[in-house]
Amino acid sequence: MEQKELLTILDQVAEGGVTPKEALQKIRVEPYKETAEGYAKIDMHRGIRQGVSEIIYGAGKTKEQILGIVQTMRSESDKAILITRMCQEAADYLSKSCPLHYDSLSKIGIVGDLSEPDGRGKIVVATGGTSDIPVAEEAALTAEFLGNKVVRLYDVGVAGIHRLMSHVDELMDATVVIAIAGMEGALASVIGGMVDCPVIAVPTSVGYGANFGGLSALLSMLNSCASGVSVVNIDNGFGAAYQASMINHIK
Amino acid sequence: MEQKELLTILDQVAEGGVTPKEALQKIRVEPYKETAEGYAKIDMHRGIRQGVSEIIYGAGKTKEQILGIVQTMRSESDKAILITRMCQEAADYLSKSCPLHYDSLSKIGIVGDLSEPDGRGKIVVATGGTSDIPVAEEAALTAEFLGNKVVRLYDVGVAGIHRLMSHVDELMDATVVIAIAGMEGALASVIGGMVDCPVIAVPTSVGYGANFGGLSALLSMLNSCASGVSVVNIDNGFGAAYQASMINHIK
Amino acid sequence: MEQKELLTILDQVAEGGVTPKEALQKIRVEPYKETAEGYAKIDMHRGIRQGVSEIIYGAGKTKEQILGIVQTMRSESDKAILITRMCQEAADYLSKSCPLHYDSLSKIGIVGDLSEPDGRGKIVVATGGTSDIPVAEEAALTAEFLGNKVVRLYDVGVAGIHRLMSHVDELMDATVVIAIAGMEGALASVIGGMVDCPVIAVPTSVGYGANFGGLSALLSMLNSCASGVSVVNIDNGFGAAYQASMINHIK
Amino acid sequence: MEQKELLTILDQVAEGGVTPKEALQKIRVEPYKETAEGYAKIDMHRGIRQGVSEIIYGAGKTKEQILGIVQTMRSESDKAILITRMCQEAADYLSKSCPLHYDSLSKIGIVGDLSEPDGRGKIVVATGGTSDIPVAEEAALTAEFLGNKVVRLYDVGVAGIHRLMSHVDELMDATVVIAIAGMEGALASVIGGMVDCPVIAVPTSVGYGANFGGLSALLSMLNSCASGVSVVNIDNGFGAAYQASMINHIK
Amino acid sequence: MEQKELLTILDQVAEGGVTPKEALQKIRVEPYKETAEGYAKIDMHRGIRQGVSEIIYGAGKTKEQILGIVQTMRSESDKAILITRMCQEAADYLSKSCPLHYDSLSKIGIVGDLSEPDGRGKIVVATGGTSDIPVAEEAALTAEFLGNKVVRLYDVGVAGIHRLMSHVDELMDATVVIAIAGMEGALASVIGGMVDCPVIAVPTSVGYGANFGGLSALLSMLNSCASGVSVVNIDNGFGAAYQASMINHIK
Amino acid sequence: MEQKELLTILDQVAEGGVTPKEALQKIRVEPYKETAEGYAKIDMHRGIRQGVSEIIYGAGKTKEQILGIVQTMRSESDKAILITRMCQEAADYLSKSCPLHYDSLSKIGIVGDLSEPDGRGKIVVATGGTSDIPVAEEAALTAEFLGNKVVRLYDVGVAGIHRLMSHVDELMDATVVIAIAGMEGALASVIGGMVDCPVIAVPTSVGYGANFGGLSALLSMLNSCASGVSVVNIDNGFGAAYQASMINHIK
Amino acid sequence: MEQKELLTILDQVAEGGVTPKEALQKIRVEPYKETAEGYAKIDMHRGIRQGVSEIIYGAGKTKEQILGIVQTMRSESDKAILITRMCQEAADYLSKSCPLHYDSLSKIGIVGDLSEPDGRGKIVVATGGTSDIPVAEEAALTAEFLGNKVVRLYDVGVAGIHRLMSHVDELMDATVVIAIAGMEGALASVIGGMVDCPVIAVPTSVGYGANFGGLSALLSMLNSCASGVSVVNIDNGFGAAYQASMINHIK
Amino acid sequence: MEQKELLTILDQVAEGGVTPKEALQKIRVEPYKETAEGYAKIDMHRGIRQGVSEIIYGAGKTKEQILGIVQTMRSESDKAILITRMCQEAADYLSKSCPLHYDSLSKIGIVGDLSEPDGRGKIVVATGGTSDIPVAEEAALTAEFLGNKVVRLYDVGVAGIHRLMSHVDELMDATVVIAIAGMEGALASVIGGMVDCPVIAVPTSVGYGANFGGLSALLSMLNSCASGVSVVNIDNGFGAAYQASMINHIK
Repeated sequence: MEQKELLTILDQVAEGGVTPKEALQKIRVEPYKETAEGYAKIDMHRGIRQGVSEIIYGAGKTKEQILGIVQTMRSESDKAILITRMCQEAADYLSKSCPLHYDSLSKIGIVGDLSEPDGRGKIVVATGGTSDIPVAEEAALTAEFLGNKVVRLYDVGVAGIHRLMSHVDELMDATVVIAIAGMEGALASVIGGMVDCPVIAVPTSVGYGANFGGLSALLSMLNSCASGVSVVNIDNGFGAAYQASMINHIK
Repeated sequence: MEQKELLTILDQVAEGGVTPKEALQKIRVEPYKETAEGYAKIDMHRGIRQGVSEIIYGAGKTKEQILGIVQTMRSESDKAILITRMCQEAADYLSKSCPLHYDSLSKIGIVGDLSEPDGRGKIVVATGGTSDIPVAEEAALTAEFLGNKVVRLYDVGVAGIHRLMSHVDELMDATVVIAIAGMEGALASVIGGMVDCPVIAVPTSVGYGANFGGLSALLSMLNSCASGVSVVNIDNGFGAAYQASMINHIK
Repeated sequence: MEQKELLTILDQVAEGGVTPKEALQKIRVEPYKETAEGYAKIDMHRGIRQGVSEIIYGAGKTKEQILGIVQTMRSESDKAILITRMCQEAADYLSKSCPLHYDSLSKIGIVGDLSEPDGRGKIVVATGGTSDIPVAEEAALTAEFLGNKVVRLYDVGVAGIHRLMSHVDELMDATVVIAIAGMEGALASVIGGMVDCPVIAVPTSVGYGANFGGLSALLSMLNSCASGVSVVNIDNGFGAAYQASMINHIK
Repeated sequence: MEQKELLTILDQVAEGGVTPKEALQKIRVEPYKETAEGYAKIDMHRGIRQGVSEIIYGAGKTKEQILGIVQTMRSESDKAILITRMCQEAADYLSKSCPLHYDSLSKIGIVGDLSEPDGRGKIVVATGGTSDIPVAEEAALTAEFLGNKVVRLYDVGVAGIHRLMSHVDELMDATVVIAIAGMEGALASVIGGMVDCPVIAVPTSVGYGANFGGLSALLSMLNSCASGVSVVNIDNGFGAAYQASMINHIK
Repeated sequence: MEQKELLTILDQVAEGGVTPKEALQKIRVEPYKETAEGYAKIDMHRGIRQGVSEIIYGAGKTKEQILGIVQTMRSESDKAILITRMCQEAADYLSKSCPLHYDSLSKIGIVGDLSEPDGRGKIVVATGGTSDIPVAEEAALTAEFLGNKVVRLYDVGVAGIHRLMSHVDELMDATVVIAIAGMEGALASVIGGMVDCPVIAVPTSVGYGANFGGLSALLSMLNSCASGVSVVNIDNGFGAAYQASMINHIK
Repeated sequence: MEQKELLTILDQVAEGGVTPKEALQKIRVEPYKETAEGYAKIDMHRGIRQGVSEIIYGAGKTKEQILGIVQTMRSESDKAILITRMCQEAADYLSKSCPLHYDSLSKIGIVGDLSEPDGRGKIVVATGGTSDIPVAEEAALTAEFLGNKVVRLYDVGVAGIHRLMSHVDELMDATVVIAIAGMEGALASVIGGMVDCPVIAVPTSVGYGANFGGLSALLSMLNSCASGVSVVNIDNGFGAAYQASMINHIK
Repeated sequence: MEQKELLTILDQVAEGGVTPKEALQKIRVEPYKETAEGYAKIDMHRGIRQGVSEIIYGAGKTKEQILGIVQTMRSESDKAILITRMCQEAADYLSKSCPLHYDSLSKIGIVGDLSEPDGRGKIVVATGGTSDIPVAEEAALTAEFLGNKVVRLYDVGVAGIHRLMSHVDELMDATVVIAIAGMEGALASVIGGMVDCPVIAVPTSVGYGANFGGLSALLSMLNSCASGVSVVNIDNGFGAAYQASMINHIK
Repeated sequence: MEQKELLTILDQVAEGGVTPKEALQKIRVEPYKETAEGYAKIDMHRGIRQGVSEIIYGAGKTKEQILGIVQTMRSESDKAILITRMCQEAADYLSKSCPLHYDSLSKIGIVGDLSEPDGRGKIVVATGGTSDIPVAEEAALTAEFLGNKVVRLYDVGVAGIHRLMSHVDELMDATVVIAIAGMEGALASVIGGMVDCPVIAVPTSVGYGANFGGLSALLSMLNSCASGVSVVNIDNGFGAAYQASMINHIK
């Protein structure tokens, strides 16, 4: 596409409709829009380049900054907006100015309405325990936002392997599985050995002592003896869902 | 499928063709075949369950063990066999008894002939430097073994960003990108920001000092600010290719 | 027992058969026998105190030192002697002077004959892969040396969960299970959830990259979500077997 | 047992009392009961499989969730329930609806009455210092809940070795010792050298500076020069007691 | 200079104007001035030795101590004073007694008026994201305090490489670039490959999970594959600016 | 001494004044006194064995526990008592019941009056910065409590080496130097190279970012290129002073 | 410059001398030259962009690859070539085909003749001990290759602070100081406090035990209490010299 | 002393016997002597300043360098010289040119004859096991070189606490104890609780797995619950002995 645009500009130069200096300006043009206060460059081309509109990472941003970005984006397009890691206070603040759906467990906020799922199959989101659910919901809601059908299998950790085995059908039927676990993180390996689709593993910081903030699950998942498993950052339910959605929308 | 088998057995029991004790035996039957010496259980059902035949992880196995496993497998099927991390000495030993193609750079051996690529699109294998090539070839040869077309983009590290930019077409055209880099591992993030397909990042142990055997690239890739990036173990070219192939063969 | 000895001495003092100074000497007596060269104190009371004769940790000792300790011990008792982590060269050297059985895989040497198993039940030694077998044999041979029946279940890793499931009977029948695995170490958790006996987990240094010499399996096992699992040092098959034998000989 | 059940079902199929489809359903039946809200799968078979009823890990669960699980469990059985790591607030909340005994030091709650101890011998719970007592009480109360007699030896750290020596009788008399210590964690090694029963070591996060949250005691215990010592996670008094109880109830 | 002073004193001794004992006293004289309460030695010679007046590191000092140091310094000279990492409360306290400009984002306070920039060229301060801005402002304000022109390029992270590319002119025009990023810290490498001036990289603690408080960005920057990049401590915007100013004022 | 006591008892047995059973009792007697509530064993023999009365480590103890220990000790002896790491609240509580001197900076409390210094020479306590002073005062007050003259040299860090050089006399005159520093901890090495007496280094947790809670100073001090330097735990001013006092009271 | 080139092309399009398609080709042209075998992309524009010709990182490259790159470069330009981390064997191999000067201590090879120094002032390369000299020579020879005068101050570690003090003149006279040290790495802080020019610190892996391969010196230098110090990777003498040369050639 | 020298020079200036310029020269004079080749600055004043002549750290020096330093030193003084960590090959080389006593276990070489011990009391060197003896001999031989009587207590590890208890007399009689242990390093704590003299702890790299090259013993010793214990670097027998000798020679 960019190539086409460039050729168009060069054709215009050749035809004299555009001067070389003007062309230079166009080729170098800033494809970013800044918010009024200048605290964030919003990448307006990303929708075109990556297929999804801008998503806001809420952590470390003030409620005013989040609202500012939302409003700038909504002035350009009426597509839904996903906000991750937004605290309750910011959610309350945004709710006054825009149509926000907020899930306090996963700290996910969605502005606007979701469109119909358009992915190839289903994404299974599985967790080892109940304490992993906040991360799982971050993944599940992100996947739904990105147009996927999601099947939730929570609390199916390997210490009671029959719990997992009783869901073998849902797992075998998935296009992608997101396996979320803290502590020893074995869930990813066991699922990885059962299914023939990609497994994206999310270590969580759930646990204590020698789990060192999620390190135990992270290392466990990176060293999985099962093939077909890759890993994202600790507690990064969003990242897993984003890649899972890419896979589920593969051309 | 397993369910179908089970139902078949149960029908036979109902029809009297099979006694309950025989059925019990069948249901509990060991779906593994052991080598004569018993040092490895070969998972004969894996071809059915996961869609690819057995792959041998050569590290830590003697040349006699590898040959034993190869011969057991070839007695069951004539499909090609992939052997990873096999030392030159083992390769020389196997060559005497079976049709082996061996790549000494990646330490990959393939017994038998590859079939035609049958994946959806292309897998791009990109590296930051020339020292990452052994890992990259492990990935590329594995991907080819698993039926994928592979495009190699080597030595396109971010310190000379124009080198990467000049390959934007190949990257945009990929179904999956495998981004392989040591040192600071930034390649995954930069590619992740350029493409709209899944990126599987492989940290390598290339570097020295504070790279701590690949830890710097591993952490860098796990913390990628780009969406759509997941990570496998340090130097695990095989694992990245295995998952990439799954994605490229998605149903 | 020590109390009884002390009382006997005090009685002798009271009866005048022993002078106070002699008693002092006896109470403070050195219960250790040194080898001629003085490089090791052999704990002759340990047989009484802990129920098993001296075991020699071969690593870091010269072949001459090992032989010296063996000969000092055999001059006191004709019970069998276990030598762990002894290199082939030392084994060859000892073989010339004493009846040694040596297993080069586990580097275990046994001088003298084993007595009959006298434990309560069976100790199951299970491994995730074939590369864990050297550690597993260290455990199995140690357990046999200490008077236990051992069942070996090798290469039953969780990535092919059916391999493990097909051995559920042997596992359910165990008095103790020693679960040995490298990489992600998930075997301990899965077995821990299946059985109702103690599981002693042994992480191994098998793997590469982010396994960091066994750290991944170690952390994974320490964080096991299954109850009833405890852990010993990386590659410490001996230690696991020693405790397993204690449990299997519980009073 | 499961085998017997399966054979029974197969017999019924052979006799025509059960159709193949019904049998399929039974074989695959979900042995888990979900709470009304679905936030936790309670493993009702665990009492049968592992010999103890469900235990609730209170950390990371809301007071409402804990109560919900308790009520679901009590609707199935009137056995006592153990809740670990429950905060005071949750304890106060539960107290209103069920007969709870709560120990604020160890954060252990017990619903219902304990049955008589039925273990083989005594479990000694020893600590290095007074700051380790919360972890020790988690272990001691868990062990008592699971039917064991417990002897408490607190503040017997190795820096005053005579304190430990004066309790040699209790130690020699134990079936299992749980050795709990922070800082340098030497208690496990010294006790391990004194007794001939299994020692389960619990590192605690007690200390400061280079203890790195319990890492110093953990590494110390894993590297114990005494035989017969295994280790559980940092501060995991519950896990140590669970395994100790298994050993004390060995068949 | 010191040499000259010493020679002067020695000449005076030779000429008899100063006795040897007086000279000894002078040579050994304490070039530090203590605050009244003695909690800090203020290095009055540092202005001469290093070219900039004293700067106060506010963290870990009480508001009274900071004010005391400020007043001692202002009694000696009327040059401006920079206070880093000063909390709002201390800033409010100082404002009552001296002319303070305080930036709450970077926690930088400046007492007195800045002089005109006198550096050679411009220092570019670039950040990967908006969350890095507090560190960036610490750098930018310090650089301005030390007499430099500063160009701010915020939120130009590598996941949208076009954002960075659109500022190539400002970057090429810099005398020094300060590259500030958390997460994977790739910004330093990409800029390092684009410019021909020194790049000082500042890892930030921005991120979560496996960023381990800034470790991921730190290791990434230390292992940069670009030449010309050096690194300061995590979040140390001040240190980067101090060195950048030295470079921009090179003789 | 203990030997003497034992001989005395044995003599009494020989003389008939004591029966063997009574002797057994005496030899095995518990040399510890418990507080009424039993939460701490106070080592009454330590004064004899180690030359200083009991010292109370206040962290992790309730104010009631501290007071209980103090009262038990004071019922046995009227020597002064040192309490380390005691919070303000506990200090206020104790003040009501006993003559306490409390220093809120170092959190040191002293009950009773100090006796005259009786050490050989002087202990110099030096710090790199002002933020290290709380640790330094813990060391200085402990040393004074233990009967030593203390010279305080605060804020003499190596970044202004002249500050340190101007105190060379005090340093050369010391019997022991306690060198306390955070950040890069270089103070210990520089002092270690200047003096010919033992240097005890105390790393502090002062700093941020890659100091990792004092790890940087700890490693720096352990790797000191100067001879004669040993190290205690991070922030352990007490431990350094305790050993320094031992050295200063050497027989 | 690139901008100028682009404008020239656009002018040619406007003038009709170049067609739009040809222009597109030119703008997108690959500025890299591959070696015949394709194992490395040589960045021919880097000389223009960064001011120095290509430098070859020898580690991980075969002698044939190094020679291939050298010959490709020499076919384009007759400027000198620097090869770092080249083993003796490769040096011997190259010597046969091109005019190589090789320093076996630092493993630096230089092909061709150096031009005259053209930097502003002098770069001082200082080391803590004699074992740091290989890294120091890598720095010194690189700096000389890049056109700088170098002053070597070796073995001036802080444990004998007078050794460093006696070179205060050379240090004060430097434009940049490269401070190289292993073990505790204090040299950087002490020099940083003495001079008013930038100090680039190079931690080395010299030492043993708790230096953890250079980690102690690295952390020490990152936490330097002196202002004006930045750090490069462990043992990275080249990187320090490259940045130092940039500073010494500042415009 | 230096002060005296300075005063003498100043007096000479006052008296006209020395010109100011000459005085300047003398005051600034380099108190270091370089070897002919300039690879090491030998600190000739150290004998005066620190009370012991130069000691050579042999690791990382060539045999020629070691000999060169020895010869330079012997041309100045005929005192004995200690060389640590010298390999057998260098020892053989030196033996040809000078009177060397070499201990291959500890790799300690001594040139010349030792003088009589002149310390206050005895230094006890204790080890946990036989594998720690090389480090212990480094300590013992260094201590003897520095004029101390040494008592060796080897293989008295805490897992057989009676072994240690049987040597309580030697321990109580020591002026300083050097406690050397690998694995869990508990020896230092137990000895620290038994004696009333300083204990210098030396962690060793003896062990495997989770001892991480000595880290387990290092952390254990730093966190010792016994007072009066300080720590040196892993395997640093020399450093411990050097400080122990200082203490044993205290003024």
